[in-house]
Amino acid sequence: MSEEGTRNLKLTVAYDGTAYHGFQDQNREDVPTIQQALERAWHTLTGEKVRLTGAGRTDAGVHALGQVVNFRTHQQAVPTDRVPFAMNSVLPEDIRVVDAVEAPYSFHARFDAVKKRYVYRIDNRPIPSPLERLYTHFEPRPLDAHAMNQAAGFWLGRHDFTALSSAKGSVVKDARRTVVRCEVEREGDSVIFRVEADGFLYHMVRAMAGTLVMVGLGRQPPSWAREVLNNRDRSARGPTLPAKGLTLYRVWYEGVLSGDEQPSGD
Amino acid sequence: MSEEGTRNLKLTVAYDGTAYHGFQDQNREDVPTIQQALERAWHTLTGEKVRLTGAGRTDAGVHALGQVVNFRTHQQAVPTDRVPFAMNSVLPEDIRVVDAVEAPYSFHARFDAVKKRYVYRIDNRPIPSPLERLYTHFEPRPLDAHAMNQAAGFWLGRHDFTALSSAKGSVVKDARRTVVRCEVEREGDSVIFRVEADGFLYHMVRAMAGTLVMVGLGRQPPSWAREVLNNRDRSARGPTLPAKGLTLYRVWYEGVLSGDEQPSGD
Repeated sequence: MSEEGTRNLKLTVAYDGTAYHGFQDQNREDVPTIQQALERAWHTLTGEKVRLTGAGRTDAGVHALGQVVNFRTHQQAVPTDRVPFAMNSVLPEDIRVVDAVEAPYSFHARFDAVKKRYVYRIDNRPIPSPLERLYTHFEPRPLDAHAMNQAAGFWLGRHDFTALSSAKGSVVKDARRTVVRCEVEREGDSVIFRVEADGFLYHMVRAMAGTLVMVGLGRQPPSWAREVLNNRDRSARGPTLPAKGLTLYRVWYEGVLSGDEQPSGD
Repeated sequence: MSEEGTRNLKLTVAYDGTAYHGFQDQNREDVPTIQQALERAWHTLTGEKVRLTGAGRTDAGVHALGQVVNFRTHQQAVPTDRVPFAMNSVLPEDIRVVDAVEAPYSFHARFDAVKKRYVYRIDNRPIPSPLERLYTHFEPRPLDAHAMNQAAGFWLGRHDFTALSSAKGSVVKDARRTVVRCEVEREGDSVIFRVEADGFLYHMVRAMAGTLVMVGLGRQPPSWAREVLNNRDRSARGPTLPAKGLTLYRVWYEGVLSGDEQPSGD
């Protein structure tokens, strides 16, 4: 339950990242972030200033359907099961709290995450759909989703993903991550890349997507995906695709906090 | 072909209606409409002022994937097959010309339309998805899509749809329309209403959707849809649902202008 009347609240959050400079608070009034909006909403409701932690520090423009955050609160005014409705009543329309549960006192949304799913969507038709433009990357040249799926398969398992990350994030000591799902599928005019791993390096999904597009365009064979990985050379891979095509779909935790309340499908 | 060097251009247009006061030009600079944006784009490209006609005069906030418009031009600067790319280079991102063909001189996008398809989308889950919010109507109470589909079936065929229209549009002499497709389907958390007819009265699809929701909530049996129609009483039907859930999907014409270039699916 709690320690000295403190609740550790675990929220599942969905957002349209278009208007935000990413998840993480920039400590500037004029730079809107998801974290800032959530902390402000709680402050508006209860008068309490909290500091919350997100499972994935999504970049500017990245969306989420199943981001997970946690924060500790001394306030008892809002019962846990009413937290989503209370927060949604003061949050902007492009951020919704989808679920709230009370987590163990030690629960940490980022460090305790055991798996995350990201989805990268490409609008692949001659002229972009205005109804997809905010949530997809547009690629007018026809993509071979089958070849892309073959390429994605080479990334399954535990590998050093240095080649598929950006330099800014290179301070990580160990660039090995375990990818347990990595596939590309065409659905009508959309090409959808789904990837699940125990962790992701900086810009990893967007670099993967850019590399897969090179294969989808026929410029490289599927086996190039394996070479890119083995060479550990960031200059010999596809481009990092734009943020707006990326959505954090789901975060998994051990035990009871398995994230079953999060969005189904995809 | 043309009369004295005049082309009658038929464009297929997609748009996100969120930022617009509907399709039809309001003759006011400060009231943005789709028609105004398209006419301005052509003027920017060629210096020529044209007046264009749309197949469906969609209301404020209504979207389109396959709206059809036509206009006559004396300008020869832009070849017909380059019109989409040229216009898209000067249009805002939320409007895209998807296709352009040269139509017979007498072709009229509105009067010659023989069938239109509209789709109304409902986001049906406890808390709305921020990524769907601009293109769906949100209904948190669970809807029985099967019952809604049964109800929709009663509207198939040729009927007087007075009960399912708004008074503002009641100047039509003959309120009979022929509905050839009318169905409701659940896809995950979305409930999707698709309707095709030879014509639609003012607010007809949104009134149909509101009436189907009453059935989906179990407040009325499916057969109520038939009663609503027969009673011709606007006060005894469901509410007119918001514009943002509605999209004009496709317009059909006789013969070669059958709209095959328009979006597939749905």
